[in-house]
Amino acid sequence: MSRLITVDWGTTNVRATLMVDGVERDALASDDGVQRVRAGDFPGALRRLLAPWWGEHADAPIIAAGMVGSQQGWREVAYLDCPAYLEQLGAALTYVEFENTHVALVPGLTYLDAAGIPDVMRGEEVQVLGAKRLGTNAELMVLPGTHCKWASVSAESVIGFRTFMTGEVFAALSAHTILGRTIDSSAPFDADAFRDGVGVGMAPANASGDLLSRVFSARTLTLFERLTPAAGRSYLSGLLIGAEVASACAEYRPADVVILGEDTLAQYYAQALEVAGIVASPETRNVSAVGMHAIASIAGLSA
Amino acid sequence: MSRLITVDWGTTNVRATLMVDGVERDALASDDGVQRVRAGDFPGALRRLLAPWWGEHADAPIIAAGMVGSQQGWREVAYLDCPAYLEQLGAALTYVEFENTHVALVPGLTYLDAAGIPDVMRGEEVQVLGAKRLGTNAELMVLPGTHCKWASVSAESVIGFRTFMTGEVFAALSAHTILGRTIDSSAPFDADAFRDGVGVGMAPANASGDLLSRVFSARTLTLFERLTPAAGRSYLSGLLIGAEVASACAEYRPADVVILGEDTLAQYYAQALEVAGIVASPETRNVSAVGMHAIASIAGLSA
Repeated sequence: MSRLITVDWGTTNVRATLMVDGVERDALASDDGVQRVRAGDFPGALRRLLAPWWGEHADAPIIAAGMVGSQQGWREVAYLDCPAYLEQLGAALTYVEFENTHVALVPGLTYLDAAGIPDVMRGEEVQVLGAKRLGTNAELMVLPGTHCKWASVSAESVIGFRTFMTGEVFAALSAHTILGRTIDSSAPFDADAFRDGVGVGMAPANASGDLLSRVFSARTLTLFERLTPAAGRSYLSGLLIGAEVASACAEYRPADVVILGEDTLAQYYAQALEVAGIVASPETRNVSAVGMHAIASIAGLSA
Repeated sequence: MSRLITVDWGTTNVRATLMVDGVERDALASDDGVQRVRAGDFPGALRRLLAPWWGEHADAPIIAAGMVGSQQGWREVAYLDCPAYLEQLGAALTYVEFENTHVALVPGLTYLDAAGIPDVMRGEEVQVLGAKRLGTNAELMVLPGTHCKWASVSAESVIGFRTFMTGEVFAALSAHTILGRTIDSSAPFDADAFRDGVGVGMAPANASGDLLSRVFSARTLTLFERLTPAAGRSYLSGLLIGAEVASACAEYRPADVVILGEDTLAQYYAQALEVAGIVASPETRNVSAVGMHAIASIAGLSA
């Protein structure tokens, strides 16, 4: 019997998966994300999380990925450059002491775009490689979130990726600019307004600065009563997600896209991709655990 | 002797100019902008502002432009469509009672872009037409501010215009996203970092959504110590202003541009335009008063 505990440790939460012979057996989660754990208390936080498994699985090897390897995490682990292969991740684990064993931290990735500007990810690399392990064919995957990531992937490597701050920009514009004054934030999702916004966001652009002008339409359309306050939130969300999807599709020109996740935000991305004429399918399995299991196998971690 | 009082009444402040025979004689200002004046108290606010002139110039006609004609102002004045001629503005004044006389409110303008999306301005139309009256040759003028306006103007008309929310987006991103964590907001302006940001903002774009990705560089460059926290603010400012300038220049293809104003922000725009290879000259005269004087003359206002 081969056991492994995988820990997906992000900014706002942490999820552990117990795998036995490569199959998920149990799961634990808490909101002890990296931003809540004080420096030095990462062993304590992990001990609390894993307590239910402690008697039976105390000797299972542990592998962790995500912001736990950042400056604000347990220990900073240097990024690997793209393209990054599964084998390279397996060979670049950093081990930190934990109880009578250790935890293997997976490095994040960095990607230099054509202009030489770096992008970074921590944790998403194990998800996309996990999805590949599960047989996903798509060469482009999108991971919706506060910072949305688009990753170009081959069978066993992350070729490159790009981060869009769309979720955080949406929140900042909604709450801290004039746009918020005419947006009813408690209104339910309005599919038509969202689609209208996607159309405006996706329209051909002269420059990236067009976005700074287009967002003002969320205000002017309400002045002329062509947009209601109740529809304003969905319109602005559509405009930003549409702009992002157009940008990613222009760069990667995908035939199809896999969306990791199936929450509300993931569904918004699916709708925007549909407007762009791209077939998007959701991947809802525990790709993070699968990816870490593959990396752990390469590193020879098992018990 | 022909007298006129012009009132440039914006969101955050109000400025009055006494003109005698078309020449500025005196000026008054306060921070009783539209957002500070309660509904119904606009006559009171104007009385307080003009008190120093009350004895001698109580019978001078008064003309006002700006947000004072908005929903939140003294009285809502309908927008005129672009192209809008000086004569049309003079023929579309709305008169509100004030003391023993009245105040003539100048309408704002609206412009429908090629996609049918409306844009709006209130007050800037008198400034650009005033600059034209003063002999400014440029066919494109930029009015830096929280919401920056670019106006395409002929001798006596506003052909069209475009609003960019750049200033407000910069403030929201700096204060309310992860970018703020590595930006030292108290640091002085860094010309090199600003210029680096302009270059990133101006780079060719696939779609407007490219901006949602580019702004993340203000974070990643600090992670790799290629940008200091002290330089972060100037870099992000340059990135957004550069993106805006590239967008406006791609749309209007100007040979030269006149910048209305000479404050710090106006100087940033001049620097970004210089990077774009556009000659920018400042216009610092009281174009608002000149524009309103021209409109008042057309309307036959004088005393």
